[in-house]
Amino acid sequence: MDEARSGLPVMVPSTALFTDQYELTMLRAALRAGTAHRRSAFEVFTRRLPEGRRYGVVAGTGRVLDAVENFRFEPEILDFLDERGIIDGPTRDWLADYRFTGDIHGYPEGEVYFPGSPIMTVEGTFGECVLLETVILSILNHDSAVAAAASRMAVAAQDRPLIEMGARRTHELSAVAAARAAYIGGFSSTSDLAAGFRYGIPTVGTSAHAFTLLHDSERKAFTAQVESLGAGTTLLVDTYDVTEAVRTAVEVAGPDLGAVRIDSGDLLVVAHRVRQQLDELGARDARIVVTSDLDEYAIASLAAAPVDAYGVGTRLVTGSGHPTCSMVYKLVARASDEGPDTPMVPVAKKSLGGKLSVAGVKWAARRPDRYGVAEAEVVGTGPVPEELADRQIAVPLMRGGRTLARERLDVARDRHVRARAGLPLSATQLSRGEPVLPTRYTGTAA
Amino acid sequence: MDEARSGLPVMVPSTALFTDQYELTMLRAALRAGTAHRRSAFEVFTRRLPEGRRYGVVAGTGRVLDAVENFRFEPEILDFLDERGIIDGPTRDWLADYRFTGDIHGYPEGEVYFPGSPIMTVEGTFGECVLLETVILSILNHDSAVAAAASRMAVAAQDRPLIEMGARRTHELSAVAAARAAYIGGFSSTSDLAAGFRYGIPTVGTSAHAFTLLHDSERKAFTAQVESLGAGTTLLVDTYDVTEAVRTAVEVAGPDLGAVRIDSGDLLVVAHRVRQQLDELGARDARIVVTSDLDEYAIASLAAAPVDAYGVGTRLVTGSGHPTCSMVYKLVARASDEGPDTPMVPVAKKSLGGKLSVAGVKWAARRPDRYGVAEAEVVGTGPVPEELADRQIAVPLMRGGRTLARERLDVARDRHVRARAGLPLSATQLSRGEPVLPTRYTGTAA
Repeated sequence: MDEARSGLPVMVPSTALFTDQYELTMLRAALRAGTAHRRSAFEVFTRRLPEGRRYGVVAGTGRVLDAVENFRFEPEILDFLDERGIIDGPTRDWLADYRFTGDIHGYPEGEVYFPGSPIMTVEGTFGECVLLETVILSILNHDSAVAAAASRMAVAAQDRPLIEMGARRTHELSAVAAARAAYIGGFSSTSDLAAGFRYGIPTVGTSAHAFTLLHDSERKAFTAQVESLGAGTTLLVDTYDVTEAVRTAVEVAGPDLGAVRIDSGDLLVVAHRVRQQLDELGARDARIVVTSDLDEYAIASLAAAPVDAYGVGTRLVTGSGHPTCSMVYKLVARASDEGPDTPMVPVAKKSLGGKLSVAGVKWAARRPDRYGVAEAEVVGTGPVPEELADRQIAVPLMRGGRTLARERLDVARDRHVRARAGLPLSATQLSRGEPVLPTRYTGTAA
Repeated sequence: MDEARSGLPVMVPSTALFTDQYELTMLRAALRAGTAHRRSAFEVFTRRLPEGRRYGVVAGTGRVLDAVENFRFEPEILDFLDERGIIDGPTRDWLADYRFTGDIHGYPEGEVYFPGSPIMTVEGTFGECVLLETVILSILNHDSAVAAAASRMAVAAQDRPLIEMGARRTHELSAVAAARAAYIGGFSSTSDLAAGFRYGIPTVGTSAHAFTLLHDSERKAFTAQVESLGAGTTLLVDTYDVTEAVRTAVEVAGPDLGAVRIDSGDLLVVAHRVRQQLDELGARDARIVVTSDLDEYAIASLAAAPVDAYGVGTRLVTGSGHPTCSMVYKLVARASDEGPDTPMVPVAKKSLGGKLSVAGVKWAARRPDRYGVAEAEVVGTGPVPEELADRQIAVPLMRGGRTLARERLDVARDRHVRARAGLPLSATQLSRGEPVLPTRYTGTAA
């Protein structure tokens, strides 16, 4: 699970155009007004979880760090912005040298979050921070949505492995990020080769209905597959008649048949029948993989069925009904002058009609009850109370533009299991409910 | 709207890893069995539209052609597949020379579609076609979902321009494709600079709440913006008090103020109040842009409000409740032998439990009633009936691996307007209903 492998299949020489135009026009106006260099802090947070969800899952942090490091304006990009009249001369000069030199701290990847959790805080000059809004939100909103769905599915699947198979249901590069987020949320493997290549995630896959249909009979198809991939392969048994296919599968592969896959029908009924048939045919170790339009509820409903692994596609990569998070990136503090030592003052939008923010740079801690189970997400400004000092959630991620905390995906995956286990038991109920922890504001944030 | 500009910000030297592993294992087994060279036809279609939708919109076709052209296995990719044990020696040799040399025909981009419409047909050897399943579906399923939402929003907005602002709510590269699909569906512009750079789509954007909060007062912020961007800029008026902000905006920019943007509150009420205030202040030409959590229903509800443009984010890029289409890629015909002249025979999955497909390579025509309004999507195999010959929908897209029909986005955008206008009027009702055209099968497909 090494993140180091990069380059192919997708080279992104710069992430600087993953940016909404207003970030550049704000920069341009602030440069002219002499305010672009004011020290500023932007915070990523969400005002709510998707309806009915008990917790959120932070994913994408590692990708954010990559994106910030690669955020540079090549001449070709500057020419484009010039031609369009988006930037003026001074802005062009400023952008040509752009490198993010600020600090980022935030919830580590795999951590859980709640409404108001300060998921990521970006500090630097206004100009250097304001440009990062869109790319940071794109990554965190997408990846965290998939990770949250994955986590619920992992809870439903208990110890059975989950296979990510959603590439065909989402943009080809979302798919790679989705496989990564799903792994963090608890999936075991992916069908997506780009995700295997880029992130080292285990990949799986054997055959589709097309392979059976290509051949003159199901038997010939199974024989071709077993001859090439060995008896341990997974044979797809629902192209014609399942019972006949299972019989043929064991005849062709022998009792060492690895697995059969069922991709349609009433999975509960069919899985029981197939298990019994496999056992009767002596293929007691042959596993059953099911893959038809599953979500966390369908997975949970198969808990008592003889299923050995679940393949999940559409509902995973589309966040199981919530394909994006509602994270925003808001200016929460800024200096009143340009000096690097000018203290920052808290700021927040104040209009009526919702969309309020809490001003100030924040810390967050998860307060345990006397049994050690989390009972509140405490969010504050100013000094951290002594009893919460070692319960703080955020970690330094980047300092002076340099990444501090690059980590393997396994670390984030393990962290998620621990973070979820530290929540009240009702966190893992699939039914709709309120966030399992209340968010308590303290200090000037209260 | 030229598609030719490529390279930055994202170079994809190869799309060959946007592939599910089973496509390579099927190839491997078929090569060994001697069946990989059988001439085959795969069809992209959907069994259903998203619940309640009246029509689908084809988008992504141009991206599919790019992806197929760039589908190549570099040595680094082959090494990866080797290391993982996914391919064997003969498969590696075969892949090293891979170039798609087959034919593709299908619905042109911007066209509408219905359940069973043969949206794209890919013909070639089994081996060369089976590998393209995932990348083709990823692109069409994602882009068509966004285009369908965009089309509904364009209907709701009538002649008012729509601005795509959803980059922050979806994967950073989905965002680029989403802006492209939204443009095809009827949007006028995007906030996403990468989409402007890559596809030439007009880009817009001026400022966010952070810009106002950065400055010591709203007046200073507006002054800074107007000094940099001119009086024709759009000032964001809901950071503090809207009425005061509108007054300040006109004082600072003068009566030539370009526009104000409202991003929160009851947009219907606020828009009326702001319009009246702008008129009273003499800024009669200042436009009103609204941008708060809009979807097609919210847009429709503002039809009578004095709104000049809509900015739409989350609901657009997530397909307005349907973030993906359910298009599949199925083998519908294949030869029984290897010769290039061996005729193909229709094939289809036949197991019980749904997920049925219709065998055979198909044509489709939209049959008009006597008033020229479409009344059925006719899908058939074999010869096209004479009266439908000039009503055929699919066009040749690629022949012998060479792209035939690369076109500007404007062409697809215009085609969509025409295609939608040819449907029964109820197509543009936003309320839930059945597909507006029935699909009629004819020939052996019946």
